[in-house]
Amino acid sequence: MRTLEWDSSKQQLQMIDQRALPSKFELIYLDTYPAVTQSIKNMTVRGAPAIGVAAAFGMVLAAIHSTANDVEAMRRDLTVAAEELGASRPTAVNLPWALKRMLRTASGSFESVQDLRDELLAEAQRMADEDVALNCQIAAFGAELIDDGDTIIHHCNTGALATVDWGTALGVIRLAHEQGKNIHVLVDETRPRLQGARLTAWELSQYKVPYDIISDNAAGHFLRTGQVNKVFFGGDRVARNGDVANKIGSYMLALAANTNHVPVYSVIPTSTIDLELKNGDEIPIEERDQDEVLNLQFRGKPATPANASARNPAFDVTPHELFTALVTEEGVVYPPFENNLQKIMQDK
Amino acid sequence: MRTLEWDSSKQQLQMIDQRALPSKFELIYLDTYPAVTQSIKNMTVRGAPAIGVAAAFGMVLAAIHSTANDVEAMRRDLTVAAEELGASRPTAVNLPWALKRMLRTASGSFESVQDLRDELLAEAQRMADEDVALNCQIAAFGAELIDDGDTIIHHCNTGALATVDWGTALGVIRLAHEQGKNIHVLVDETRPRLQGARLTAWELSQYKVPYDIISDNAAGHFLRTGQVNKVFFGGDRVARNGDVANKIGSYMLALAANTNHVPVYSVIPTSTIDLELKNGDEIPIEERDQDEVLNLQFRGKPATPANASARNPAFDVTPHELFTALVTEEGVVYPPFENNLQKIMQDK
Repeated sequence: MRTLEWDSSKQQLQMIDQRALPSKFELIYLDTYPAVTQSIKNMTVRGAPAIGVAAAFGMVLAAIHSTANDVEAMRRDLTVAAEELGASRPTAVNLPWALKRMLRTASGSFESVQDLRDELLAEAQRMADEDVALNCQIAAFGAELIDDGDTIIHHCNTGALATVDWGTALGVIRLAHEQGKNIHVLVDETRPRLQGARLTAWELSQYKVPYDIISDNAAGHFLRTGQVNKVFFGGDRVARNGDVANKIGSYMLALAANTNHVPVYSVIPTSTIDLELKNGDEIPIEERDQDEVLNLQFRGKPATPANASARNPAFDVTPHELFTALVTEEGVVYPPFENNLQKIMQDK
Repeated sequence: MRTLEWDSSKQQLQMIDQRALPSKFELIYLDTYPAVTQSIKNMTVRGAPAIGVAAAFGMVLAAIHSTANDVEAMRRDLTVAAEELGASRPTAVNLPWALKRMLRTASGSFESVQDLRDELLAEAQRMADEDVALNCQIAAFGAELIDDGDTIIHHCNTGALATVDWGTALGVIRLAHEQGKNIHVLVDETRPRLQGARLTAWELSQYKVPYDIISDNAAGHFLRTGQVNKVFFGGDRVARNGDVANKIGSYMLALAANTNHVPVYSVIPTSTIDLELKNGDEIPIEERDQDEVLNLQFRGKPATPANASARNPAFDVTPHELFTALVTEEGVVYPPFENNLQKIMQDK
């Protein structure tokens, strides 16, 4: 089963509800584009590649429910929908990338509104299928970087749940395991939403990859004492120079790894690369609701004082010089990143 | 009220139960030394200075309940108690430091077992009073390092609760605030036991110091984007060369601060300095029960898969080169730390 799937008979987008895992495996069904916008905002679906494809299906729903009688009017409805969907989360570039691609599809010539609808659905389906194929290609390149006996720190969730299927960084780890390499994963719990403790641990359990969950702040200890061979995480937006915005905590992890001569890899489809941005300082960083940090329990009681406040940036930027390489479906990209990223993007 | 206080009439050690905060302010009363050992192990009392003084009162309780009829026999009972108390937690050196001091007191000449008991109680009381006085002295030196307008990241809890009263790093921050400096604290929540989110936030609320709680992994974002002026934390054991073992996460925080040219201070009484250890690699690092990491809730449900496992090192080592200075009751110690630490310890 995919993280998100189109149900043709019901004309609905089916999703795994990632907020319910690991205690419950629940599916939800969305039949309007505002429902898709909401599911991205509240992180029912998360992970840069997954939210890109979810938004594409959101555009399909916008077209289905548009009351426009001609193609031009429907295009106007689609532009409105794209704006709403695009404003749901600011950091990952896969979201505007997917919406641009859907709008470009809509800009073709169509005999009828139904033809436009059909083509948008076909395009969204292609994007979903491509995502799975890309991830398999990424995994093949990335698994080459993993050696038998490696202990790997992984941050956030980049598995099947973060994509349509298979995953990016976690897909690399999964393939290395399936190749028979004896590996062990230290799973950063990834506060505040615990995507590591909840989702990555759940996926690794399914794949039977040996792992231990650690507090995010413990990674430095394992790195400094020589217990880690590699660090892998995903990426939500990569600037032209190779700076990577990814889940909060990626920067401190990459810095501690680099300082201790442990290789650091960001694993990304090329749809995550934003050549329009000079460097990571230009990437918008989402700050989410403070309750995500404050809603903590300790021994069954609230862990923070009643009047407490919090700051909650959801992403940070890891400067390119901390990466050993970026792993894409076009191959493993080494420094100098600015040249080499432009090269693979030109070849596409 | 002090974090721990001797009740002479009941011959009990009274403590604030730090596991119940911030939702409940509860006192507990210990009347045997194994109960004190247990309270240190299960972190009813925590913080290097506080557990040192708690252990000293544990020795008083051992003397009170010893059935020895002569001083020599009581000394043997005290040696057994010191071993048990000393084994409760391995990393902080204040614990063996306090026990050694109590055993040295016991090695004097006494007319009767009651004289020995009285002198041990007097010595433990002196250690408690000295701790408060030292912390005030530390705060006076440390507050000089804080400027009006500073934003400060603080890790774990180093306040009144971590000591007999007043605190170390948090005592510095509190004094700077009381001096009228306009400061803001970013409180690392400090997974897994949340001493920051629970205890430091609670103390700062009492002192009316403005603060926001952050996930530990978010510190790097605030440091890299120039939003932080200083980093302060405590210390559980300082090696001869200035390497500091402190609560897990201190290393990654110090590294991110140092990389971004933000000064880093470890605030410690000199009882935390262990000149016998060449460097931080010789400091024993406690690994605590994995349930401290795994017992997480997300939206009211277990956040980790049922079969998950975890690693839980409770401390890490920050190499001396990442510190701007160490703040002690003898003054602010700058590099070269090896020379300057030995100098202040000789002067004592």
